[in-house]
Amino acid sequence: MSKGGTSKRAAEDINKQQKKIKNIDEVLKLVKKLAEQGRKNTTAERSLAELDLAHSVREVVDKDADAVLDEIEATMLEVAQSILAGNGYSFDIPSRAKGNQLYVPELDRIVLKDTVSKRPFASSQACRKTAITTRILGLVHELCNKQINVTKRDLFYTDVKLFEDQRESDAVLDDLSCMLGCTRSSLHVVASEKGVVVGRLTFTEDGDHIDCRRMGVGGKAIPPNISKVSNIASDALFILLVEKDAAFMRLAEDRFYNDYPSIIITAKGQPDVATRLFLRKLKLSLKIPVLALVDSDPYGLKILSVYMKGSMNMSYDSSNLTTPDIKWLGVRPSDLDRFNIPAQCRLAMTDEDLKTGRKLLEEDFIKANPAWVAELELMLKKKEKAEIQALSSFGFQYLSQVYLPLKLQEGDWI
Amino acid sequence: MSKGGTSKRAAEDINKQQKKIKNIDEVLKLVKKLAEQGRKNTTAERSLAELDLAHSVREVVDKDADAVLDEIEATMLEVAQSILAGNGYSFDIPSRAKGNQLYVPELDRIVLKDTVSKRPFASSQACRKTAITTRILGLVHELCNKQINVTKRDLFYTDVKLFEDQRESDAVLDDLSCMLGCTRSSLHVVASEKGVVVGRLTFTEDGDHIDCRRMGVGGKAIPPNISKVSNIASDALFILLVEKDAAFMRLAEDRFYNDYPSIIITAKGQPDVATRLFLRKLKLSLKIPVLALVDSDPYGLKILSVYMKGSMNMSYDSSNLTTPDIKWLGVRPSDLDRFNIPAQCRLAMTDEDLKTGRKLLEEDFIKANPAWVAELELMLKKKEKAEIQALSSFGFQYLSQVYLPLKLQEGDWI
Repeated sequence: MSKGGTSKRAAEDINKQQKKIKNIDEVLKLVKKLAEQGRKNTTAERSLAELDLAHSVREVVDKDADAVLDEIEATMLEVAQSILAGNGYSFDIPSRAKGNQLYVPELDRIVLKDTVSKRPFASSQACRKTAITTRILGLVHELCNKQINVTKRDLFYTDVKLFEDQRESDAVLDDLSCMLGCTRSSLHVVASEKGVVVGRLTFTEDGDHIDCRRMGVGGKAIPPNISKVSNIASDALFILLVEKDAAFMRLAEDRFYNDYPSIIITAKGQPDVATRLFLRKLKLSLKIPVLALVDSDPYGLKILSVYMKGSMNMSYDSSNLTTPDIKWLGVRPSDLDRFNIPAQCRLAMTDEDLKTGRKLLEEDFIKANPAWVAELELMLKKKEKAEIQALSSFGFQYLSQVYLPLKLQEGDWI
Repeated sequence: MSKGGTSKRAAEDINKQQKKIKNIDEVLKLVKKLAEQGRKNTTAERSLAELDLAHSVREVVDKDADAVLDEIEATMLEVAQSILAGNGYSFDIPSRAKGNQLYVPELDRIVLKDTVSKRPFASSQACRKTAITTRILGLVHELCNKQINVTKRDLFYTDVKLFEDQRESDAVLDDLSCMLGCTRSSLHVVASEKGVVVGRLTFTEDGDHIDCRRMGVGGKAIPPNISKVSNIASDALFILLVEKDAAFMRLAEDRFYNDYPSIIITAKGQPDVATRLFLRKLKLSLKIPVLALVDSDPYGLKILSVYMKGSMNMSYDSSNLTTPDIKWLGVRPSDLDRFNIPAQCRLAMTDEDLKTGRKLLEEDFIKANPAWVAELELMLKKKEKAEIQALSSFGFQYLSQVYLPLKLQEGDWI
């Protein structure tokens, strides 16, 4: 451990902390317990069908290419029959407006109610949008048939004359996702990825065997199309979800996962869809806890909320993108005093920070957890924030060799 | 091939193009020739020492950890001797100002002339900066000793009290790089990476064997620390440098490199230091041509200039970051008409675009190549730009199945 940058007192503190760390088995005792609880609590996620809901509601799920092809072909068969019967044709598009969204507490997720709008071809108002819808149905049919994945931008460029503006093709794509009852990735239209993963994890990606224990320090780029990922296997006790690249690099280079059996993931800031899908798939397949390491500021919590709750405008797709049960390991506001983060490594919160923080206090996912409320209130009271890197003030490897082992040993997650 | 989005005439065009494509061996004939030329032309990059320069000049080179440790220890020995002799101490810091930069046409790169400024400890003006320099020398010594890599941000946080502002520690780090005559990555301070690679390439990264032929569609994240990369091996004929993520994804999913032996790299937009170092290392080790696929707009050329020339403010480090010999494969302004890119997929250049384009015409790396000048002049005359994705208007796989094979077969790079 380097203590280069620290005073004599701080060096003594670090020494004391290091002495507290027991052998690996002891350190991992509480994490093991948490992992076991997780495996026992697999009361299989409840589905909409099991609930007796007043409204008939709609949700989107992952479907394989054949199922999407079936849906599209059934839709077009109806269209053809309607035309042959002399009625022209129209699509029934579920409304994605806020008024049509319903929060289901039993499932802890948002679904769509049954408001549907007609999109008829024989209407001067809807004609163009109906044509776009038909065209994109055809393109998605081609994608599923060929089993290839493209970006929204690629899709737009296949028929710029008709779509005119990418926002038009993007919006219709979301309509189709609701109409066909499947996720956007099931439509074979994917987001570009920016996440990386390293650690005790192997999987198959498009036929290739991927071993994340042997990915150097750069890690494996998280695949853009989750449907190509299978055979997930791991002897990890937990997933460490890291907000930032620099912390990921430190842990990867120190091979943190060798001593502490884990899978380390980062989306390098704001989570992208591919990383969220990947995290969710790991959690569901492996049933191990997810521990989060984020900056101690409102933005760090915002990032957690995207992983846990998703964003409002994709609410109908949220259950396929989110990982509701994430433990907040650190860096927590209470850590700043507990670990004696030097005053000059703490930053004053801006007015914007304080506003965001106060808004977060009103959010359900915070309110549901009193320990989170207490931490956030402490942050707002002290008006201080700190980055994960602030831990470097105790030496470059303090994060991997002292902070995280202590946190794990004490089961200090909330 | 999908021709879904195209008129009958366009479909005929695509058919004609497809028929032109011969068997793989024929397609690769010209690329093979180019690769052979490349291998013959290895008149070993000339070094500064071989040139008879009027000025005594200074350049920075990659050094291993032991060499950097030696440099630091020699520097500190001088410091100690100076103090013991009762003279206090000071550092000699090479100036990085524009007036101290010299373009050496024989080497086609910028080096630093011999202006050096004293940084004495016993000066009220320089004292703080000298303290910071000494401190960072100590920290870099620790990093090289432990063989670990950190980010600039980590470095800053090790002593916020002294550094106060990250710009201070960053600037001194650049000073040290010039003073010790080694690259920033030799100081074990690395940039965060965002590039990915896939294709016919194997290497060792921090002891792990990495096989980029088996990296699914997501690819391998390019490592932040190039010094951990060794044993580079490949049977590829060329490196395909791609500007954007979406095109990378298309080529990775289609396993373009199976039929056309290649290594595919992208930095997902603006090139980062890690990707530039990686490309350079591949080019030097494998001695195969680099073909670039960028948007047909001034920004695409700007990106090429960063790979080829580097950025001005790191000029002293440029020779370690750049890959001077890159061929511009596409999408070139002349391709728009040649491949009949539909009018609605072409975008009008903005005033800003035109300004950037005209400035580029003045740059040496453009002027050095008349074919590039002609293309850029055509762009400015037509006032049209186009993204790589515009090729999707002929079908999602047109890029990998028609456009690139035709380009390669015809040797259509400049």
